[in-house]
Amino acid sequence: MKQLDMIYEGKAKKVFLTDDPNVVIVDYKDDATAFNGLKKGTIVGKGAINNRMTNFLMRKLEEQGVPTHFVEEIDDRKTYVKKVDIIPLEVIIRNKAAGSFSKRLGIPEGTALKCSTLEFSYKDDDLGDPLINSYMAKAIGAATQEEIDTITDYAFKVNDFLKAFFREIGIELIDFKLEFGKTADGTIVLADEISPDTCRYWDIETGEHLDKDRFRRDLGDPEGAYQEVFKRLGFGE
Amino acid sequence: MKQLDMIYEGKAKKVFLTDDPNVVIVDYKDDATAFNGLKKGTIVGKGAINNRMTNFLMRKLEEQGVPTHFVEEIDDRKTYVKKVDIIPLEVIIRNKAAGSFSKRLGIPEGTALKCSTLEFSYKDDDLGDPLINSYMAKAIGAATQEEIDTITDYAFKVNDFLKAFFREIGIELIDFKLEFGKTADGTIVLADEISPDTCRYWDIETGEHLDKDRFRRDLGDPEGAYQEVFKRLGFGE
Repeated sequence: MKQLDMIYEGKAKKVFLTDDPNVVIVDYKDDATAFNGLKKGTIVGKGAINNRMTNFLMRKLEEQGVPTHFVEEIDDRKTYVKKVDIIPLEVIIRNKAAGSFSKRLGIPEGTALKCSTLEFSYKDDDLGDPLINSYMAKAIGAATQEEIDTITDYAFKVNDFLKAFFREIGIELIDFKLEFGKTADGTIVLADEISPDTCRYWDIETGEHLDKDRFRRDLGDPEGAYQEVFKRLGFGE
Repeated sequence: MKQLDMIYEGKAKKVFLTDDPNVVIVDYKDDATAFNGLKKGTIVGKGAINNRMTNFLMRKLEEQGVPTHFVEEIDDRKTYVKKVDIIPLEVIIRNKAAGSFSKRLGIPEGTALKCSTLEFSYKDDDLGDPLINSYMAKAIGAATQEEIDTITDYAFKVNDFLKAFFREIGIELIDFKLEFGKTADGTIVLADEISPDTCRYWDIETGEHLDKDRFRRDLGDPEGAYQEVFKRLGFGE
């Protein structure tokens, strides 16, 4: 397939058309942003790590019965994926309190929860991706009940798999963000990425943050953290 | 029953013990606050109107199969109610966009919704009563799934009844806030109040605000608005 025009450039990825109308190319950047774009920087090597880690995990998730947008890895930074219309909801699953959940509810980071939670944020940078619930999503036409049910089912399946998978490599999955899209034939698939940009990974032994919080919170050596997760997944060295 | 010690003084109500351990007295004040207590004032006559309007509507709701805390009206401002432990969730139902919903989602007030919505706010003044969802409520132990199901069922029943009831007297019910409590025997009942303090009432013909927004937004003559709703319900003159 041939790479054609760029149709989107986001904070961490570019998307290009191809000569197949159902396939686009995702090109992962090293750029990092936080706080809705207020903080900007670079994490050297992040693009390649996130690309390959996402593809690796999406292949595993397909085996678990979660359809994804993944088609084929092109190189270190680029991947063919199915062209989708993104459902404008960020889906956040949490296994322990952290980040905005802790701030919103005044609960210290790392606090155990009585159950894993699912949240929807309405994807709108100008509004700051506000928390909404499923009634609100339906009321404004962001998703139908059927779409919400499917997304919710997939998101908890992803959590079950990832939580167990990362535990095996000494990492606790604290929370993560997913995005879903609809292909031309209306199928809902997991899209976007699964990486230290979109997950909170804590070392099970030391509690060390192995994710974008190292960049957000200036904890030092974000490159090392991304490489560490990558290595534990069996890549590199 | 005898009035004993005051056990609570909130923004708009005081609560007193009685010599019956299962019954307390609610005493409605004319005090009005907005923006989490930042704006304070008085709406003369509000206490009596809210007391009698709440009792009137709770009696109607009991007939619809929604259990409430109402026991017996004592006088203009005071009512015997069942002693309950308040479930720490404000339940907000919306039929049209307004207030925080409009602000959060960038949608003009009065916009029609594809469906009525239900929201939970976690009752915590220090946190600003943040929006949460049912997963979050369960995760922090604010409510169980069974409690959430019961509350949700009652809240939509209240909406069905109130919407139709107010339409008959020329008022559109835009949104409202409910609180629920648990009695000594564990029964969930509607508590708090149903009044222009807790509902948005718009005149169907003119769109005029007949509720606390007149105070919040300095629209003038809040007393007149409260009296107008009261009168249309068949009270007064």
